Amino acid sequence: MNNAPIGVFDSGIGGLTAVAEFNRLLPHENIVYFGDTARLPYGTRSKETILKYAEQDIRFIKKHNVKFIVAACGTVSSAVGANMQTGDGVPFTGVLMPAAQAACSATRSGRIGVIGTPATIRSGAYGKAIRAIRPDLTVVGNGCPLFVPLVENGFTARDNEITKLAAAQYLKPIRDENVDVLIMGCTHYPIIRDIISDYMGDNVTLISPGEEAAKHVLAVLTETEMLSDREEQGENRYFASDSVELFAENAKAFLGQEFRGRVEKVSIDELTAV
Amino acid sequence: MNNAPIGVFDSGIGGLTAVAEFNRLLPHENIVYFGDTARLPYGTRSKETILKYAEQDIRFIKKHNVKFIVAACGTVSSAVGANMQTGDGVPFTGVLMPAAQAACSATRSGRIGVIGTPATIRSGAYGKAIRAIRPDLTVVGNGCPLFVPLVENGFTARDNEITKLAAAQYLKPIRDENVDVLIMGCTHYPIIRDIISDYMGDNVTLISPGEEAAKHVLAVLTETEMLSDREEQGENRYFASDSVELFAENAKAFLGQEFRGRVEKVSIDELTAV
Repeated sequence: MNNAPIGVFDSGIGGLTAVAEFNRLLPHENIVYFGDTARLPYGTRSKETILKYAEQDIRFIKKHNVKFIVAACGTVSSAVGANMQTGDGVPFTGVLMPAAQAACSATRSGRIGVIGTPATIRSGAYGKAIRAIRPDLTVVGNGCPLFVPLVENGFTARDNEITKLAAAQYLKPIRDENVDVLIMGCTHYPIIRDIISDYMGDNVTLISPGEEAAKHVLAVLTETEMLSDREEQGENRYFASDSVELFAENAKAFLGQEFRGRVEKVSIDELTAV
Repeated sequence: MNNAPIGVFDSGIGGLTAVAEFNRLLPHENIVYFGDTARLPYGTRSKETILKYAEQDIRFIKKHNVKFIVAACGTVSSAVGANMQTGDGVPFTGVLMPAAQAACSATRSGRIGVIGTPATIRSGAYGKAIRAIRPDLTVVGNGCPLFVPLVENGFTARDNEITKLAAAQYLKPIRDENVDVLIMGCTHYPIIRDIISDYMGDNVTLISPGEEAAKHVLAVLTETEMLSDREEQGENRYFASDSVELFAENAKAFLGQEFRGRVEKVSIDELTAV
């Protein structure tokens, strides 16, 4: 038993879709969330910079004596792979490996699609992770650069014509390859899950990396007897490096629930101080 | 007569639409362009940060002994207004005042529309600038957050259904106000001028702030006898704070012409060194 919080971080607020899954699957756990909103987007930075930021984010999260660290950010997860060292034995996971494993388990046809930011797709990280597990599988990727701005600007209703057109354009090459599993490789995409699913059809299983990361953490904490014994619902605590008002304002859409709790400001100076 | 270059800077490559106008209207002038691609976007930063970055950008540009400094960036122009001090008498202009003046001259109905990034619209800077010139005019603004990602991802053909739908959604509230002038208050928008014009109709005059800035600089240099006496075409020299390859790759779409010349890298350390 361990009542310490689980730490989750992301370049912004997209990682709140993962927090929603943690709240659902691990309802009695406390969550400490850090969104590095002052330095987003990570996706366009060099790998060196991404790793430096990730290290600083982890150092900040660890100050809260967390029992598990989760990189909800697809870009960070793709950059660090499975090999992030947290230095003192705090378990760590990105969203990449749990999602890759879930996709390998779910496919029948052996053909898996991946969508993500251009940086995630260019990195080929999902393909490498999947082929490391099952070298016989075929992986087809496509970057969807408009999805993040569409979600962030509220073009998310199932019948939104603009997002439906963008989805058709991005997903056609993947649907044409007859995949039966599609990894939504960016924190924002579960928000438009209906639109993606409507285009791909009922026979395609959608994988949400945030959900798979939550399942992975649940399994590890169960196995190591580190689940909380709290009987009431756990609490979420939020930190952001840019405007806390903006964070709270935008959080609801990503959490899929009323935003409760306080957002605290973290200065860049605090993040970068050695 | 003065053969020193004109300095133009922007948070990224969008300001190249202004460079294209300078090349057209001042063909014998050399241009030094700096795009702060490592620190974009400016639009989501605090005013304090924007002003700090702008000062650093100007300090860098001045190392090239320019005779005029132009902030092509709508965000910087809105933040500094007309009051940027360059310290040693190098003339400075943003894109805001020339565009506001052009809009005031062009309107017959007294109703002017402004589109821009949400930050530019929220600042109300165009409204203030226009009312300072003509307090009797009505200004109607709307933020168009999808336009920048649409342009940056190549959704720019006149018949692009996604961009046409987005334009209709953003421009309807402005068209409904019966404006006869529309300021395209972001460097990216002239790239989709046709789509904007098709929706607004022939009776609405579109104002391109980059073009108005070029006209303003031409007028000042003519009046002060500081135009170049070069007979051949001037040269463009480019600097960027992130990948020079990416800059060169994306430049053509914004310049509207073949990209010639070399892009040189500027490190953030060089920008921030006092």
